[in-house]
Amino acid sequence: MKVAKFGGSSVANATQIKKVGEIINSDPERKFIVVSAPGKRNDNDFKMTDMLINMGNAYIQDESYEEYYSIVMERFKEIIEGLDLPSSLIAEVEHTIKSTLVQDVDDNLKMDSIKALGEDNNAKIISAYLKELGLTAHYINPKEAGILLSDEPGNAQILPESFAKLYSLREKDGILVIPGFFGYSNDGKLVTFSRGGSDITGSIVAAGVEASLYENFTDVNSVYSVNPTIVDNPKEITVLTYKEMRELSYAGFSVFHDEALIPAIKAKIPVCIKNTNNPEAKGTLILAERELNGQCVSGIASDTGFCSLYVSKYLMNREVGFGRKLLNILEDEGISFEHAPSGIDDMSVIIRESQFTPETEETVIMRINEELHPDTVSLQRGIAVIMVVGEGLVNTIGVAQQATSAFAKANVNIEMINQGSSEVSMMFGVQAIDMDKAIRSLYNAFFD
Amino acid sequence: MKVAKFGGSSVANATQIKKVGEIINSDPERKFIVVSAPGKRNDNDFKMTDMLINMGNAYIQDESYEEYYSIVMERFKEIIEGLDLPSSLIAEVEHTIKSTLVQDVDDNLKMDSIKALGEDNNAKIISAYLKELGLTAHYINPKEAGILLSDEPGNAQILPESFAKLYSLREKDGILVIPGFFGYSNDGKLVTFSRGGSDITGSIVAAGVEASLYENFTDVNSVYSVNPTIVDNPKEITVLTYKEMRELSYAGFSVFHDEALIPAIKAKIPVCIKNTNNPEAKGTLILAERELNGQCVSGIASDTGFCSLYVSKYLMNREVGFGRKLLNILEDEGISFEHAPSGIDDMSVIIRESQFTPETEETVIMRINEELHPDTVSLQRGIAVIMVVGEGLVNTIGVAQQATSAFAKANVNIEMINQGSSEVSMMFGVQAIDMDKAIRSLYNAFFD
Repeated sequence: MKVAKFGGSSVANATQIKKVGEIINSDPERKFIVVSAPGKRNDNDFKMTDMLINMGNAYIQDESYEEYYSIVMERFKEIIEGLDLPSSLIAEVEHTIKSTLVQDVDDNLKMDSIKALGEDNNAKIISAYLKELGLTAHYINPKEAGILLSDEPGNAQILPESFAKLYSLREKDGILVIPGFFGYSNDGKLVTFSRGGSDITGSIVAAGVEASLYENFTDVNSVYSVNPTIVDNPKEITVLTYKEMRELSYAGFSVFHDEALIPAIKAKIPVCIKNTNNPEAKGTLILAERELNGQCVSGIASDTGFCSLYVSKYLMNREVGFGRKLLNILEDEGISFEHAPSGIDDMSVIIRESQFTPETEETVIMRINEELHPDTVSLQRGIAVIMVVGEGLVNTIGVAQQATSAFAKANVNIEMINQGSSEVSMMFGVQAIDMDKAIRSLYNAFFD
Repeated sequence: MKVAKFGGSSVANATQIKKVGEIINSDPERKFIVVSAPGKRNDNDFKMTDMLINMGNAYIQDESYEEYYSIVMERFKEIIEGLDLPSSLIAEVEHTIKSTLVQDVDDNLKMDSIKALGEDNNAKIISAYLKELGLTAHYINPKEAGILLSDEPGNAQILPESFAKLYSLREKDGILVIPGFFGYSNDGKLVTFSRGGSDITGSIVAAGVEASLYENFTDVNSVYSVNPTIVDNPKEITVLTYKEMRELSYAGFSVFHDEALIPAIKAKIPVCIKNTNNPEAKGTLILAERELNGQCVSGIASDTGFCSLYVSKYLMNREVGFGRKLLNILEDEGISFEHAPSGIDDMSVIIRESQFTPETEETVIMRINEELHPDTVSLQRGIAVIMVVGEGLVNTIGVAQQATSAFAKANVNIEMINQGSSEVSMMFGVQAIDMDKAIRSLYNAFFD
């Protein structure tokens, strides 16, 4: 039994949903279908969820919401009509939306219910469409499915008892269409995950029903070995481990909502990234473990927007607790750090730049001066992080050489190397301005 | 005005002290002479200070100390007679030692006074010998010199008011011979630095008198670019910066007592390492700053005896404070860390192995499991650290490539790279068993 999750662009309109229908129809193992809200139909389009948020905000603040409502309804109507489904479905969607708007709950909960309307109605429409195709299909509400979440509107977490309930869905007849993105608290309130949470639903359902495969349908053929906006036509990755995926997604590989894979990972369910628009393409398979195929590097990820906080003090390494105190100041100020390379008498802390407003910068530097009495403290902005990722990295002699040679060839100075904790990655810091040429040179070194 | 400090092997016997006399006589700028206790005359010899400690322990514990006393006196007698100095000096040494043993102070202070007898009597002997050579020379007791220390027997720290007092020594006539290793607390008690503290005295005197040069006489011609027991006849280093020196001394370059240079560093006094047995050799000059000579690496240092504590946990980088909490546990258990390379979901902490008894290991791992709930925690022993040091490292493109190529050439797997905080060093971790071949290959890459 497989779980297939279809993202926003895969269910953006009738044309796309017809492709989804064919995909489901072509493999009787595809029993659990998780769907997103309609996404963008083209680059200039809106996402259903954004429009619902606009509508919800206007409604809650007693402003005019009717225009948003019309746009939302127009979109659902277009989908239903495009699929030749009965117009009673349009009335049903209308009724659901209106009753959600007027329900008597607090604003946060009402907002969550409004945000969930995209996935919920889309699941009903797709279920109806599958029936039209002659399949046995049912819409299953997350409450009925057993998706129990913590009582945190907009940022709910799965409760462990959900998994056993989900497992019993295996006994149900036919194809089950489940809306992504939301579930219910123990006392029956509708709550949503954080944004992008349909991936979380898919992963949870896959874990709960103990799927043989979790298929994640998107609009790309596969995960690429490097960002295609930097390198033309990069190699597709056919197999990745969970660990590699996570290290890659850290620095700019945003195929997945960051935490989404964890439930599937923990349940050791294989995950496959597939393309709704090209379902014949093999896609990228993500496994707990994989055979090494002789190629030690799987992918190269990169991201800008880092900064480096540098602190030096004579005899720092004699001062027990210096590093801990420095990290403590950052924690106090709500700043999480990424890496902390250290010398004998100095330490750098790599931090996402977005965490440093001019005020935070001032406070942090003042506190370091006052509490740690360093010889120097400074903040360097404009750092890019490049991750070279591969299960073959550890114990392969010469990878560091290949990588550093690529930087030298591109005439790029390496500001930082952090290697030795993760077994599947090697991290480099460079000036943001040098990032693209370093990436191209690394790609040539490892993939050409 | 120069400060010249002579280490244990330079003042081990009459032959050596005659060389010292010639060195002092050859340069009228050598006004401040700091001397150690007599060191080893050959590989199987004892150091005076060790014998004094034996004598002191025996005396304090009411055991038989006379044999140690005889050995100590025999050694001083041999030196005094070898220098053809009057036998009244032997009586004076005898008197000093005996009165130190019987003085009525607590055991810690008595031990400090006993330990200091090697330097103190040697300074008196050398001063007398310089007079014999026809020089104007005076023995100056550290109390008279103004070396005021914190009241911490065996681990005293310099008090800042010392420097102004030392400066006034410039006005004194002739050559001043000052015993190293000890000073006095504000209430007049004799206290010593930690072991090896004659280097600290030299550095403090150089800073205090604002010397034009601090000459540190040892038994090597210079600092070598790499450990001569690993590479035959390695290149001598002619100029180093303080920073380079400190990074090198961290990993096995033990020319200096670790903290000794700090007072001279802070006062920006140039330091020269010279050889008493070959004073014509240029030695190694240590400066605050230096011209880059086209060679980006100055030296390669290495040390074994490290271990790596590895902790992994899914979503570690989302958990604000994880790294800090880990370091906190180590600090609680009195363990100081050297480096902490981190991945996305894992972190390693490099620690001196000597800090991990089997019991500490058990406690630390138990606490990490209980307090941080990681997915994995393990300790890997037998790690060696290799430091590639040079002022030219930063901003020189391709150094990392040269270094990592050298490891690959030696067929050595790099377990860890830590680069990016210190501007003058690049740190590598390898299996201890691979250290020597990695070092030889690095030496070939950077110096051959």
